[in-house]
Amino acid sequence: MGAKIPRSKEDDYTAEAAAQRRAFAAGQTGAALDTVGTYAIDPAQCRGNIEHFIGCAQVPIGLAGPLRVNGEHAQGEFYVPLATTEGTLVASYNRGMKLLTESGGATVTISEDIMQRSPGFIFESAREAKAFRAWVVERFDDIKAVADATTTVGRLRDIDPYTASKFLYLRFNYTTGDAAGQNMVTKATHAACEWIRANYPGIKHHYLESNFSTDKKASSINTLRTRGKRVTAEASVPRDLLAQLMRVTPEQLRHQRSVSTTGAYMAGANNNGSHSANALAAIFIATGQDLGNIAESSAGISFVEVLDDGSLYYSVTIPSLIVATYGGGTGLSTQQECLKLLGCTGRGSVHKFAEIVAAAALAGDISLSCAVAAEEWAESHEKYGRNR
Amino acid sequence: MGAKIPRSKEDDYTAEAAAQRRAFAAGQTGAALDTVGTYAIDPAQCRGNIEHFIGCAQVPIGLAGPLRVNGEHAQGEFYVPLATTEGTLVASYNRGMKLLTESGGATVTISEDIMQRSPGFIFESAREAKAFRAWVVERFDDIKAVADATTTVGRLRDIDPYTASKFLYLRFNYTTGDAAGQNMVTKATHAACEWIRANYPGIKHHYLESNFSTDKKASSINTLRTRGKRVTAEASVPRDLLAQLMRVTPEQLRHQRSVSTTGAYMAGANNNGSHSANALAAIFIATGQDLGNIAESSAGISFVEVLDDGSLYYSVTIPSLIVATYGGGTGLSTQQECLKLLGCTGRGSVHKFAEIVAAAALAGDISLSCAVAAEEWAESHEKYGRNR
Amino acid sequence: MGAKIPRSKEDDYTAEAAAQRRAFAAGQTGAALDTVGTYAIDPAQCRGNIEHFIGCAQVPIGLAGPLRVNGEHAQGEFYVPLATTEGTLVASYNRGMKLLTESGGATVTISEDIMQRSPGFIFESAREAKAFRAWVVERFDDIKAVADATTTVGRLRDIDPYTASKFLYLRFNYTTGDAAGQNMVTKATHAACEWIRANYPGIKHHYLESNFSTDKKASSINTLRTRGKRVTAEASVPRDLLAQLMRVTPEQLRHQRSVSTTGAYMAGANNNGSHSANALAAIFIATGQDLGNIAESSAGISFVEVLDDGSLYYSVTIPSLIVATYGGGTGLSTQQECLKLLGCTGRGSVHKFAEIVAAAALAGDISLSCAVAAEEWAESHEKYGRNR
Amino acid sequence: MGAKIPRSKEDDYTAEAAAQRRAFAAGQTGAALDTVGTYAIDPAQCRGNIEHFIGCAQVPIGLAGPLRVNGEHAQGEFYVPLATTEGTLVASYNRGMKLLTESGGATVTISEDIMQRSPGFIFESAREAKAFRAWVVERFDDIKAVADATTTVGRLRDIDPYTASKFLYLRFNYTTGDAAGQNMVTKATHAACEWIRANYPGIKHHYLESNFSTDKKASSINTLRTRGKRVTAEASVPRDLLAQLMRVTPEQLRHQRSVSTTGAYMAGANNNGSHSANALAAIFIATGQDLGNIAESSAGISFVEVLDDGSLYYSVTIPSLIVATYGGGTGLSTQQECLKLLGCTGRGSVHKFAEIVAAAALAGDISLSCAVAAEEWAESHEKYGRNR
Repeated sequence: MGAKIPRSKEDDYTAEAAAQRRAFAAGQTGAALDTVGTYAIDPAQCRGNIEHFIGCAQVPIGLAGPLRVNGEHAQGEFYVPLATTEGTLVASYNRGMKLLTESGGATVTISEDIMQRSPGFIFESAREAKAFRAWVVERFDDIKAVADATTTVGRLRDIDPYTASKFLYLRFNYTTGDAAGQNMVTKATHAACEWIRANYPGIKHHYLESNFSTDKKASSINTLRTRGKRVTAEASVPRDLLAQLMRVTPEQLRHQRSVSTTGAYMAGANNNGSHSANALAAIFIATGQDLGNIAESSAGISFVEVLDDGSLYYSVTIPSLIVATYGGGTGLSTQQECLKLLGCTGRGSVHKFAEIVAAAALAGDISLSCAVAAEEWAESHEKYGRNR
Repeated sequence: MGAKIPRSKEDDYTAEAAAQRRAFAAGQTGAALDTVGTYAIDPAQCRGNIEHFIGCAQVPIGLAGPLRVNGEHAQGEFYVPLATTEGTLVASYNRGMKLLTESGGATVTISEDIMQRSPGFIFESAREAKAFRAWVVERFDDIKAVADATTTVGRLRDIDPYTASKFLYLRFNYTTGDAAGQNMVTKATHAACEWIRANYPGIKHHYLESNFSTDKKASSINTLRTRGKRVTAEASVPRDLLAQLMRVTPEQLRHQRSVSTTGAYMAGANNNGSHSANALAAIFIATGQDLGNIAESSAGISFVEVLDDGSLYYSVTIPSLIVATYGGGTGLSTQQECLKLLGCTGRGSVHKFAEIVAAAALAGDISLSCAVAAEEWAESHEKYGRNR
Repeated sequence: MGAKIPRSKEDDYTAEAAAQRRAFAAGQTGAALDTVGTYAIDPAQCRGNIEHFIGCAQVPIGLAGPLRVNGEHAQGEFYVPLATTEGTLVASYNRGMKLLTESGGATVTISEDIMQRSPGFIFESAREAKAFRAWVVERFDDIKAVADATTTVGRLRDIDPYTASKFLYLRFNYTTGDAAGQNMVTKATHAACEWIRANYPGIKHHYLESNFSTDKKASSINTLRTRGKRVTAEASVPRDLLAQLMRVTPEQLRHQRSVSTTGAYMAGANNNGSHSANALAAIFIATGQDLGNIAESSAGISFVEVLDDGSLYYSVTIPSLIVATYGGGTGLSTQQECLKLLGCTGRGSVHKFAEIVAAAALAGDISLSCAVAAEEWAESHEKYGRNR
Repeated sequence: MGAKIPRSKEDDYTAEAAAQRRAFAAGQTGAALDTVGTYAIDPAQCRGNIEHFIGCAQVPIGLAGPLRVNGEHAQGEFYVPLATTEGTLVASYNRGMKLLTESGGATVTISEDIMQRSPGFIFESAREAKAFRAWVVERFDDIKAVADATTTVGRLRDIDPYTASKFLYLRFNYTTGDAAGQNMVTKATHAACEWIRANYPGIKHHYLESNFSTDKKASSINTLRTRGKRVTAEASVPRDLLAQLMRVTPEQLRHQRSVSTTGAYMAGANNNGSHSANALAAIFIATGQDLGNIAESSAGISFVEVLDDGSLYYSVTIPSLIVATYGGGTGLSTQQECLKLLGCTGRGSVHKFAEIVAAAALAGDISLSCAVAAEEWAESHEKYGRNR
């Protein structure tokens, strides 16, 4: 087996330790990592974010906007940093943002905010699992006290139980402040499970996670019952403006969406939207979010209709948007700067951030739908993108 | 409406143009973007990757490995660059890679390789859609000639038709060489559709995309019929080694996976794996892949059994892994260096790369499953991660 | 347009009216309906069950059993009437029942019991939908009073809200006694909606049903959150008995189930069981259930493991079993006789009935799984069935 | 364990054997089965349809129609027998049929017709599974010869392969004439598998069915790739007629369907239709179909739009309609009479039958959608149904 990657005994988060590992890598593979090693953030910042640090990937950021957002938290016009390597993406989002802003902005509403950890408990029989469920309901206050004691921010809101076979799956729902909260809820639920095991005999076994919070996976349960923020961004676009900027009518867009929704439904797609994943990925990279969560966050239900006054109504609902303005990668220099650009740093900023993200997703969804409806989509990629 | 983001009339991909936009952003929002502006890649490189370039997000890379891969293309030990801001992730993958490598490596097999564009055709009735389907079959060679003429690399392999209502959805399946190929197939299918419209009267309307290739969305059709590469990574782990490195038995892991699979199935998760999305996101950022594709690429079917000799068999199948070693962001300096680190540059390297990615996903899936089974998961996060 | 089917002005539920319609049908089509007209139930019984009555379909019933059930309600051995035209079905279920009974019986547990109606409310914006949701929570007692006043049996237990776009979907959950309750909950929710419309201004529109209770459709929400009864039937089968009666080992069955579960998962099947739908359809016809509900009731999660003592554990969980012992077709003569055969008539018998149904489903699931595992499946069909 | 159900040594399909079993049941349970024992079909007919025959369930049939069908096989007006115990159902379908017929009829198109058996093959590794797949393609003609030799009617059309882990799932697609064909394809695929095992070394194990044809289960694969017949029924309804008969406008119906489709999508329903399952169940019972197939056949994709001339376009696509006019229960007296009523007996009648079934499903889907849109749904149930 090949050589082990070197670690520094003094301090592993220094430029020296990183350089030593790059030298090691070059020795093993012949590949220089010079640009990777030319980073602008302080390695000491990375403690808690990464192990075996060797440098940074540099992902180009494009600026899109202004984007007018009429949220309950975000109000005004924003310039949105999008980190991507996909040509046309920023241009397309920018176009959608212009349309939204000239239409008076995207109205955004957060209707839910919870993060989960979902242990599974195993019994001898379904009947024992059922009895345990009743006990959990009865002792909820005790369980909550144990869980909440592990964190100053997280709060256990409720426990949602699901039964199958001789198992009881408990979906622990927490509020987690400005953090995404996955680690917080892991720690709290771990403590809760230890307490439960100590106080409820008859549990044969348990797992701290049972794939029921579907972390890093798209799922029906998260689409239905929320993971992270449940956000709806919506806008009414005057038909003249739509014709002028996008060269389509509301009726054309409605038709395009209805054919696409039938396609998505039949294809078993987890959502009927155009491409929320693109907005999320680009903003997630720029602002230090957990990119693995694109899997679940990318579910976006779109709905379109022609209003009585002939204007276009377009909405995107993201049922499991997992974002943070504190913790994770949000504190790294470039990421923190991007959050500041949006005015989303400091306590209590996560809802404002979630609203901007959803508004940006709406902008991109409309823009792509219009391009497909107007039959301009292929052309726009030839104009902006590489011809790969 | 707020001020418009400035563009340079001479050349928009220069340090000056980027600086001008950062100054503009600072003026509009008060946020300095100094670290964003301290990048190491050449702005000229970004042409075709981004619009309104302002600088770079710097995402820390950790090195994991060695990871032994027994692929049809990748053979030997690899050191894998993982760009992430999630503490513990690199450590956990590194641990899984050690287990795999000491077990003799991950065997990886690519069983399919196709990229889609899926136009939808609208008729007056289902009967007309059916007649059109027969015509498409009959004229496939002509359609292929038109599509293939638009690209030197892409080749139309077949057209897979789906009917609903008065629509015909055509899933155009292409091989795309070392590129992911989304733009290539868009251009080719656009040409094919134009030819079809010119040669088949009676089509009322068509859309170049109909949500049937489920671009940027998790879906059953892509899990079943592949988008990008269909890759299986598998390994047999001796029980002694598993006990020594992971402190679990194969039987414990089997039990944990069976409870998790029941959980995932009931939750309507698009896959029963642990967290392929994490491996993909980290490697995708490091190597310049399209991050929006995490939505569909993250589907990973895991299967575990205890072999007759008592060792553990563990496999992860990724049915829609969308990766490239050419085009997109793969040519940017830091991304290209990371691809070189894996020996995945140059013509014909994409299958090697896909095999390494799948092997890394397997490493992470085993590692997390073992942590959950051994009840060490919460502890490991407290050790490595931030306490958020 | 062809002639209208005759109705009797005096009383449409008489042998004469039925005969008149059969004569009409014969006149229109040339088809005699003599056997259809040779029925044993009293047409007057059919009032409320059917319109334009012309006679009866006669579906052969086979008897299977004894089946030992260890329920919370059903206790003892039962002979189960199965109405079907599929050869081998009764023999296969009978074989499974023998196995269960000789193993000590099926343990059955009902963990949930709720029936839904799910109106959708439409607003001008998502924010208004959110405000309405808060109001519904606040005024639940009033809404419940209105709903409950419409029925002596049904009781509104809770209202489960779901948001998307500018819609609020409310899943009204009721207990409905011995009835399946679909009509009861329709009436109650209709009254509740009228009251809501009168008391909450700002609702633009509402629909009494919005496809969110997924009546007559398989769905994730019903698998997760129950429609009708949520029932688990489970059994431990000694390995000797399994070998003797089924010619398989527990390990073979575990292997067969794991391959089948992977297949079902990937195929996007709504459940990983063998064929619960067969048991349900056969019992539903015999006992007067609503056959359209097979669509949702047929979801059955199966779980198998080898216990420490080497015996086989097998369970089937039916998350949305919709059954009744009162109302619908349960009172018709042949159907009532079949319910009596099971001892499931009279007040409070529906849970006993649900337990027997689930135990029968378990019997069939094991039997077919064993046949597939033992490679005897094709042969058994040749022995018993028609060679179609 | 309780007494064993008696079988006749001479001939088990006689009135005497049935009576003997009823007497046995009465002795065991105290329940008389007199009406069950008063059947009109000949027990000898039931050979191959049932075991342990004791008599018949009598399910009331209501007549609905006329229903004008413009199929490729069914042309003209039909009177449709619906066997159900759900009040209002026949009235509602009758209403929808009147609407369709006065609109000129339902246009019906069958776009696919295949029945599956899906064995799973297990190997040492994914790479071996891949090699086997290539071999199956290469030897298709041999495999087809073996499969086709087992039946005079069934023909193997193609084999559709799916890989996961070290498994290869083969979806054998057959045409099966007028039979539903499940037994036929079981026998043929069994022979094919035996031949494969004899000719391809290296298969570790195989199962004749692997849950990949999702028999008796709703699934994405069957919605996408058809099981049985794929049928679309569609109609254009003049707006005046819609207003007059249903009291709704096309725009109201479009709105209702769009809200319902969003609801169904989010709920994870396998289809967005109203209630195809009801039509299928009622016709299936009347005509001797396999009721367990309601699970998969009930998937029905609905699509609605307002045409340029202001009329309503409504379509229902049933992607996996499993029906027969030969074999199964189709030959029993009452069932055969109902098939004759539709003119669907004799060779080559199954497509005509499938078209009528789909047209009836369309009638019911429109009728219920209109009732919900017009807010008349609750009232109609109070008028016709029992108040349960």
